[in-house]
Amino acid sequence: MELLINPARKDWPSLCLRPSSDNPEVVKRVNSIIERVRKDGDLALKQIAEEIDVFIPYSLEVTKDELLEASDKVSAEVKHAIETASRNIAAFHKAQLPREIEVETQKGVRCIQRPVPISRVGIYIPGGTAPLFSTVLMLAIPARCAGCKEIIMCTPCGKDGKVAPEVLYSASVCGVDRIFKTGGAQAIAAMAYGSGSIPAVDKIFGPGNQYVTTAKQLLGNRITAIDMPAGPSEVMVLCDDSTDPRFAAADLLSQAEHGADSQVMLVSDSIDGARAVMEEVERQTETLDRADYIRKSLSKSRFIVFDEKKEMVDFANTYGPEHLIVSLKDAWSVVDQIYCAGSVFVGAYTPESAGDYASGTNHTLPTCAWARSYSGVNIDSFLKKMTIQEISGEGLKGLAPTIVAMAEAEGLQAHANAVTIRCGYEKK
Amino acid sequence: MELLINPARKDWPSLCLRPSSDNPEVVKRVNSIIERVRKDGDLALKQIAEEIDVFIPYSLEVTKDELLEASDKVSAEVKHAIETASRNIAAFHKAQLPREIEVETQKGVRCIQRPVPISRVGIYIPGGTAPLFSTVLMLAIPARCAGCKEIIMCTPCGKDGKVAPEVLYSASVCGVDRIFKTGGAQAIAAMAYGSGSIPAVDKIFGPGNQYVTTAKQLLGNRITAIDMPAGPSEVMVLCDDSTDPRFAAADLLSQAEHGADSQVMLVSDSIDGARAVMEEVERQTETLDRADYIRKSLSKSRFIVFDEKKEMVDFANTYGPEHLIVSLKDAWSVVDQIYCAGSVFVGAYTPESAGDYASGTNHTLPTCAWARSYSGVNIDSFLKKMTIQEISGEGLKGLAPTIVAMAEAEGLQAHANAVTIRCGYEKK
Repeated sequence: MELLINPARKDWPSLCLRPSSDNPEVVKRVNSIIERVRKDGDLALKQIAEEIDVFIPYSLEVTKDELLEASDKVSAEVKHAIETASRNIAAFHKAQLPREIEVETQKGVRCIQRPVPISRVGIYIPGGTAPLFSTVLMLAIPARCAGCKEIIMCTPCGKDGKVAPEVLYSASVCGVDRIFKTGGAQAIAAMAYGSGSIPAVDKIFGPGNQYVTTAKQLLGNRITAIDMPAGPSEVMVLCDDSTDPRFAAADLLSQAEHGADSQVMLVSDSIDGARAVMEEVERQTETLDRADYIRKSLSKSRFIVFDEKKEMVDFANTYGPEHLIVSLKDAWSVVDQIYCAGSVFVGAYTPESAGDYASGTNHTLPTCAWARSYSGVNIDSFLKKMTIQEISGEGLKGLAPTIVAMAEAEGLQAHANAVTIRCGYEKK
Repeated sequence: MELLINPARKDWPSLCLRPSSDNPEVVKRVNSIIERVRKDGDLALKQIAEEIDVFIPYSLEVTKDELLEASDKVSAEVKHAIETASRNIAAFHKAQLPREIEVETQKGVRCIQRPVPISRVGIYIPGGTAPLFSTVLMLAIPARCAGCKEIIMCTPCGKDGKVAPEVLYSASVCGVDRIFKTGGAQAIAAMAYGSGSIPAVDKIFGPGNQYVTTAKQLLGNRITAIDMPAGPSEVMVLCDDSTDPRFAAADLLSQAEHGADSQVMLVSDSIDGARAVMEEVERQTETLDRADYIRKSLSKSRFIVFDEKKEMVDFANTYGPEHLIVSLKDAWSVVDQIYCAGSVFVGAYTPESAGDYASGTNHTLPTCAWARSYSGVNIDSFLKKMTIQEISGEGLKGLAPTIVAMAEAEGLQAHANAVTIRCGYEKK
């Protein structure tokens, strides 16, 4: 944990740097995996699984029996939690549904913007130690609210050929239509190209390791659409002498436990306050199971103190954190100056974990300062906005001089003809 | 011009294929250009210009005097047309401005989705034979409506060091803040990394040749955001025996004149109707200046006849055209079944050129069937949607059992701690 006092603006860019994830070896391997899946489909999926010694299921698709079995294994308590979280997520995302917009821009010229759901979306859920069933909720529920026709999901299975019951149960209650047991870059390639049993999707969502994110980066904008560029998770906590150091420390630690590459930043206007949080972080770390991960992540964490609140705000906007916790006396006056963050948590009783699971906001958020240009996943992520226009004969006559003048100035004669042939408009 | 009658569904994918644009030589060259601009900034821009023998301006930035000079050169008629088109574009895009959404998902849990303009956007306008000033309108006006703080523009200058006056005039009246004389992949790299005189932007918009689109593809999702993947322009016209063949032909030709790689498709339920349009296309082509381009584009065009209207609709959604003209007796009943198209033009008096210039809709649209997952440029393209949540002490108590149950099931103890430490909730 490094403590910095009033760092100069010229040093901000280096303080805002994230670890680079460009690894040519990974890119090479992922490209080869993509090529194999594109050519051989399901066969490639099974062969790759064999090579990396993971369980090869007889059928890639999860059966109804497996879903029923999973449901039996999930505790009533977790089921109830999933239900509550789902209700909040659905409520917030349904409220975002855009309406159709219609404007008569000039007489007889009617323009419409119509939201249309993306037909088939694919969700990737990583395997590994923690079964990230909350991500199933965060992706499948908005897709369902948006009206997507088909939601498919890929996730790796364990050595025993099974997927965590919470993941299957969540997929089932959130309306995922088909689930396939395959992971890594090969799962992303299968959803992009189709593999035989796995259909090609129109857009791919979800987190993953560097192979998964590299595959999404390589295929996105070329073969399929993706949710957003991905990077390690991050939190920035803004605090002052009104902040309870125990709360700030707990927030930093809940981010640090995600993994050794998590980014943890505290920005304060009080040296004593920052020191108090540092001490509290040390104390709480002792009590946690994932202390090893946490210490690695904390070793790169930064505690920054600025004299001026304005500097705190500017630094937060420059860093562009995925999660920004604003735990300040006059929190809203600061929140209203924030324009670059994925999701903002206001006040003493709004921990990041509330948004991670259950407040209703989405936890799939832009990292690595992508908040400069990207939104977190929201209802728009599952929609396209198609425009429609209808012009009357009179309307076209009114618009003709404008279109013809512009088309001629651009040297596009046939563009002008398409108007003049319809309405007999002749340039004077 | 090829005429196909009732093509089988199994042949649709090949009928919907677009020419592939992956050219390893172009990728290699563009990568080298990107690397030079990243390292040497402005110096690289000048050196590259020298190498490809284009005019090297003393200063990259267009001066106020140049803007005044350009304004003098634009005719009153074109100025008036720009004014009318701008008013329509602004009206339609302002109507799309999303409002802030606030939902209390459960007692004491307040979730907000706040639209925030992207701070600095970059617009690329190609040079070449036709001065595409309409694209300046289509990108700068929505950026201004969205509230972007800074709009910068790059465009190549001619051998005389000048930019087309219509382009400069449009930029000036649409609120572009700074204009730089540089083009090609190097301009895209400069806007992505910053070059010294050209500032790095948060998102890059605009069309271009294969070097420009390759640079956008290589940098997008890695260094900066881009508007959408790009490909050659396309139109599909749906017609029946009610369609005036002269109108349909004029629409096909206005697309074909864009360039030899333009895609032109006509889908009809009448063989005689399709043949009449083909004849009319031949006749009108004779009268057009760009007949050479047009013949090349038409040589790959397809006229497809289906017996059933349902097949016409399904084929249109499978092809996913950038522009779809629905010139049918009962046009709206078909339009309401379309879910995959960039922009739809309804009825006999709505030519594509109306949307290209002046109806108010945006002409930056998804090609190559990207309409499956992408919208055309719209107000959202210049905004991010940030979420904000505020939970009261009571609210957190209500949410605690849900968060703690989920965090524990995911094995994330510190996530649970951030809640329990705040509200004293202990799991039974």
